[in-house]
Order: sequence, then C-alpha cells, then structure tokens
Amino acid sequence: MPLISEKGLQMPESPIRKLVPYAEDAKKRGTKVYHLNIGQPDIKTPQVALDAVKNNDIETLSYARSEGSEIYRTKLANYYAQHQINVTENNIVVTTGGSEALLFTMGSITDPGDEIIIPEPFYANYNGFSKASGVTVVPVISKIEDNFALPKIEDFEKLITKKTKAILICNPGNPTGYLYSQEEIEKLKKIVLKHDLFLIADEVYREFAYDGLQHTSVLSLDGIEQNAIVIDSVSKRYSMCGARIGCIVSKNDAFIKTAIKFAQARLSPPTYALIASEAALDTPQQYFDDVKAEYVERRNTLVTELKKIDGVKVANPKGAFYCVAELPVTDTDDFAQWLLEKFNLNNETVMVAPASGFYSTEGEGKNQIRMAYVLKNEDLITSVKILGEALKQYNS
Amino acid sequence: MPLISEKGLQMPESPIRKLVPYAEDAKKRGTKVYHLNIGQPDIKTPQVALDAVKNNDIETLSYARSEGSEIYRTKLANYYAQHQINVTENNIVVTTGGSEALLFTMGSITDPGDEIIIPEPFYANYNGFSKASGVTVVPVISKIEDNFALPKIEDFEKLITKKTKAILICNPGNPTGYLYSQEEIEKLKKIVLKHDLFLIADEVYREFAYDGLQHTSVLSLDGIEQNAIVIDSVSKRYSMCGARIGCIVSKNDAFIKTAIKFAQARLSPPTYALIASEAALDTPQQYFDDVKAEYVERRNTLVTELKKIDGVKVANPKGAFYCVAELPVTDTDDFAQWLLEKFNLNNETVMVAPASGFYSTEGEGKNQIRMAYVLKNEDLITSVKILGEALKQYNS
Ligand SMILES: Cc1ncc(COP(=O)(O)O)c(C=O)c1O
Ligand SMILES: Cc1ncc(COP(=O)(O)O)c(C=O)c1O
Repeated sequence: MPLISEKGLQMPESPIRKLVPYAEDAKKRGTKVYHLNIGQPDIKTPQVALDAVKNNDIETLSYARSEGSEIYRTKLANYYAQHQINVTENNIVVTTGGSEALLFTMGSITDPGDEIIIPEPFYANYNGFSKASGVTVVPVISKIEDNFALPKIEDFEKLITKKTKAILICNPGNPTGYLYSQEEIEKLKKIVLKHDLFLIADEVYREFAYDGLQHTSVLSLDGIEQNAIVIDSVSKRYSMCGARIGCIVSKNDAFIKTAIKFAQARLSPPTYALIASEAALDTPQQYFDDVKAEYVERRNTLVTELKKIDGVKVANPKGAFYCVAELPVTDTDDFAQWLLEKFNLNNETVMVAPASGFYSTEGEGKNQIRMAYVLKNEDLITSVKILGEALKQYNS
Repeated sequence: MPLISEKGLQMPESPIRKLVPYAEDAKKRGTKVYHLNIGQPDIKTPQVALDAVKNNDIETLSYARSEGSEIYRTKLANYYAQHQINVTENNIVVTTGGSEALLFTMGSITDPGDEIIIPEPFYANYNGFSKASGVTVVPVISKIEDNFALPKIEDFEKLITKKTKAILICNPGNPTGYLYSQEEIEKLKKIVLKHDLFLIADEVYREFAYDGLQHTSVLSLDGIEQNAIVIDSVSKRYSMCGARIGCIVSKNDAFIKTAIKFAQARLSPPTYALIASEAALDTPQQYFDDVKAEYVERRNTLVTELKKIDGVKVANPKGAFYCVAELPVTDTDDFAQWLLEKFNLNNETVMVAPASGFYSTEGEGKNQIRMAYVLKNEDLITSVKILGEALKQYNS
C-alpha cells in the first residue's frame, strides 16, 4: 500500500472537532449539549447580504476573478479607509476565507524549514497551515495572569534565527480575547524592522473591541508598509462563516503579486459568497452596535458566572468572543471528553475546547479551556452552572 | 524589506491569465475578443441548482462540516454508483473545487522533494499545486500525432525513482481532449501496483465523453482500491464553475483520514455552493444529453474548420471541451499576444491559450495552442476564420 506523507501524518487533528463524536453520542442518548466549543455565532447574518443572494439573477455560475473583482476590492478599500487603514484595491487579494489568506501568506513568505514566531495560546489552525506549508511554529508564551498581554519583546528577540520569516499575531485574540494596545503594536513594529521580518496580523475580529477600547491595525502604522500583512475575513464580522470569503491586505507589492499566483492556481473564490460579501459592506452601523452590545453582555455574564466557581481563574477578554479559563483539573482534554461521555445535569451538558490544542509547547494549557460566548445569556448561565456541578463531581 | 520565499518566486503565472491585460486593452480599443482561452462554458447552470439557492431560508450563514455533510456525501455516493463506481459516504471528502482536492491530495501523499509523474501536456495548474506543495512534476510526453494517447508504459517506468509517489492523469484530458481507454487504465493499474504508487485520476470531465465511448474511472477497477484516488468537481459537470465545490474519492482509509485533517484546518466548504451542488444532483438526464450534443457539434465545427487552414494540425478530441492545435508558427506565446495587441479582422480577434504552459518540459508545445470550445457554433466559425487570416498576416 502506498504511504501517507510525513506532512500528512503530522497534520494536527482539530482540537475543536475531535470531541464531536462524543457530542453526537451524547445527543443520541437524549442529552442536550451547550456548544461553547466553536466560534460559530448564533447572531443573524445582515439581511442585505442574505437578500443579495436570494435576489441574484445568475444563469451561468461562472468563475470570479482569482484575486477578486476590481469593484469588490475597491469597496473593501473604502471599508478599510473607515478603519484608519489607507489602502487601494491593488493592496488586496480576495481569498476563500481568512483560512486561505493564511495559507497563501505562508506560501508566499516561507520555504519548508522556515520559522514563524507566534504568541501562544493561538488560533489552533495556525498549526495546521504551518504543517501544510512545512513551517515551524516557534511559540512565545503569554500568561493568563497577564490577561495574555504581549510577551516581553526580549522574549521574542531570543527566538529570532536566520530562519525566522515573520511574527504572527491575532488581534483581538482567539482564544485569548486579548486586544493589543497601540503601544504593543509599536513594539512589534520596531522588532520586525530591526530584523527585517514580516508582521502578520490576523484581524478577523477587528470589530469586536469592547469597553471603549480602539483596535489598532498593523496597517495603520507608518514605516512598516513593506512588512505588514493583514489577514481578514467576513466570517465573524457579518456572522457569515459559511460564506468563505476573506482577504489579504498589504502594501508590499512583491508579496501581493506572489499571493495572486497562489490565487490564480485555485482559480476563483466562491461566486455566491462574493455576492453576499459585497452586499454585506452596506450593513447599517446599528447592526454592529447591537451585536457588540450583545457580546459585551454575554462576556460579562460568562466571566461573572465563572468567577463564582471555586478554583476557576478567568482572563478578562477585551475583544473577539472567546475567553480562556483555568480549571481546578490537571487534564482538560480528559475533562472535556468526560463532560460529554459521562456527565449530565438534568440531562444537559456542555462542550468546551480543551486549551492544549491552542499551544504548540508540549504540556502547556493542560488545565485551561476555551469558551466561545456565542450563546444567549440564559444559556451561558445554565452552561456555567453545569460546569460548576461537573467540576465538583469530577474532582470527587 | 523582508523576502518572498523561493516557493513563492517559483509559483508559475497562469498561462491562461497572463494574456488578460492584453485582452482588456483590445476591448478598450473597441475590438471584440472571442474567448477560446478558458474552460468557462457559456452553458446554463441547471435550474434546480440555481433555484435551490434562490429559495434558501438561511438566517445565519454557518460553517458546514469540514468534509461535507453526511447527507451530501451519501447522495454523491449514489451518483457514483450510477457511474460504475461503488463507494460509500466515508470514501468522500468534499472540497472547495477540484483545485482544493488536488492540493489536499498532494499534501496527504507527498513531502517536499517527492515526485509525481504526469503525462504532458497537462492541466497547467498541476504546476502551481506542485510548487505550492514542494513537489517535483516529472513529465512524460504524449504526442499530438498519437492524439495524445497514453505514453508507453516503459516511458513511465524509466522515470520512477524512490521519490515517486504517484502517477497523475486527467481523464478526459485538459488540454488534450483525450479519453483513456479501459486498456490504458489497466496498464496504469499494473504499474502502480508493481511500484506501490498512488494513481490519481482527475475526472472532472467524466460526463464529457463523445462518439459513444465510455469513460473508465480508476475507481471502477478491482485490485487498486488502496492506490486509486479520484479528483472531482461540480464546475464543469453542471456548468457551475463559480460554486467551488469538488471532492476527493478514495477507498484508502488512511488517505481519506489525512485529507480530512487538511479539510478541518480550513474549516468548511462554501455553504451556498453546497446547497447548489446538492440540488444539482437532481439535474434531469435531458440536461446532460443536450449539453453533450451541443459540445459534439462544437467540436466537429472547430476541428473541421481548423483543418481547412494550411499548416494547422489538430488532435481529434474524444472528451472534455478542449482541443490542442499545432500552428505554422514557432512561438505561440508571441503569436497569442500579437493576436490581441496588433491584429484584428473587422475589429474582431481571438484569445487562445499558448500550449507551452501545459508542458513542464522546457521548449515543448511552443508551436501549439489550446482552444476551449465553449462558444456557440457560429462564433467558433468566425473565430477560426479570424485565426486563419491572422496566421497569413503573422507569417508574412
Ligand atoms: C483567529 C482566526 N483566524 C482565522 C479564522 C478563519 O476563519 P475563516 O476561514 O472562516 O475566515 C478564524 C476562525 O475561527 C479565527 O478564529
Ligand atoms: C483538469 C482540471 N482539473 C481541475 C480543475 C479545477 O476546477 P475546479 O477547481 O473549478 O473544480 C480544472 C479546471 O479547469 C480542470 O480543467
């Protein structure tokens, strides 16, 4: 029998999806499962986007331009201008989700064996895209005690080698919910300029900044035009994860030209989704205000309720819709599976993401979980109550 | 300034898209351009597929299951059963187009430096996906004189090394239009079994087999269950290239399990496109009969007209909707550009794909072009007339 590649063998299983069979079994037993494990909001997609697709008059569903139509890219540039990011349509490559934006970016700037430094915990699929590209992730640990703030610049500097091609941050962070300050971004600017590295910022949660804090894009800073790359997506902004539209934004022409070659090879982003995404740019501001208010309320509920449980430590998230909590257990992989396999409170249980999958340092995050506050307030309250009872029972 | 990767620099430009700026300039000058350069049919998408999207009642556009829903995969298995391919839903991974199916397949079975043998001329983007995966394409030349039939098995065998992981064929062929016989597929079966290789068959043009000939899938043969991988797509079958849905089919469980890990990293295929693709499975047989009749007529017209031009040699395609022609010029890259830049007949010209991009052997195919017969009969007649006049002028 012919062999699977080393690369294929090393591809990580999704830490979020590996518990799915246990959740399905629980449901088959009649247990209700509250899903705090995945960043799939229950928020409605803007009506303008949904309507645009329903009202389309396509007769032949054709390929779109590989890098996105000039019209859509021009409209995107207008959107960015409203967020203190001055770019033109030529600085943008439209992709099939932020996922593909990450893949094309890694392909354009790394060769097998190259390294990318990433503060951990980080979005788990950075591991997958890195493996697929033959890139080594070099983690720099951020701590729950510091709310997962940017690690010290010396900690980054120690890790830079000849093979380092980029620093990758997620802002606001999945899974941490941390929002980097302008000062922190300025520090990163200095270090990438000094060492001639790319600074990749995954800003797919840009709109989700709370408590009056402002999001700082790496593209809003002067002097790192050639270094800065933004990864973006419509998935979370408009609660349309299933569209699969994202983009790469950079003022580095050589980089954009290269990314377009990757885009040409796969021909086209999905055409229906482009219709929805272009229309979504006309979403009224009220939509975002409402969504933000909703998430702030949910966050407050989740954090308040979690703090009531003995032995639970929570980082206070300032953005995105995730929260990392430390539990009084030694192995959250086991605990999360146990929640689905063995436990229920009045025939209900919760599904959470064990945090180990968000670290690449072996053994880190074993007592942490990530929760996505993508459920209604009352469901969050019930979920935390279930979690509290479960911890008592698990630990006795 | 930080550097682009070697991989990025080596990514090929699309041979089909690199002439686009010249075509755009021609249009700006008021010249009508007949597009024979790209496999984007003008055929209508089945109404059932279009209607399913228009009538969707989505409120939150959510991620779909990474490998495709169980329902859709089960329906796909039924479709394959009608084509003498016995598979279950567990043998299928739904992808974002045949393009992503190729990328996941290469990632799952090759490491950087590994080799894949491909009869050339071949679908140009095999080059791009190979570069992106760090794979070396090892070409084995097929000849226009033989209608691009399968090269001799000895020719393959000579090229097999320790690094060879697979043989990749396209059946029916883009750009050749060649349809491999059952006998040829049996020969490939023997050689992959002998050398423990994967046999990847890109069968996205399965339905387009003409002159009463039967398509033979590599999955319909006994004894190579562990070696055979099929690449598939809805793009051409239902003339819905913009959907971006395809799939990988294989009975090799380890391979499928690995491909699913790649699928999980990118989260989800596009949800609207899945609705269209699932509905498209109910397309009435009449649709395919009509489309096939239309393509046969177009092929006949194109080949007949081309043969009238002095010095033009044409392979007679038995499938897909492409045809390779040899022209009495030495450099079709130059000629194709000249057609757009310098030539017009009554203010009309044609856009064709220079064939060199479909070869990886340097210098091969320099006097060949690929034409896609995706236009109406009368437009094909006009196009060939323009081509004939252009050749006279270019050569004088
Ligand atoms: C930080 C981050 N980046 C990128 C993505 C990819 O999202 P998509 O491919 O849907 O745009 C996600 C999805 O959860 C994410 O959380
Ligand atoms: C031979 C072949 N394989 C694969 C593809 C990829 O098609 P898609 O990604 O639209 O499924 C094409 C498109 O032209 C093709 O001709």
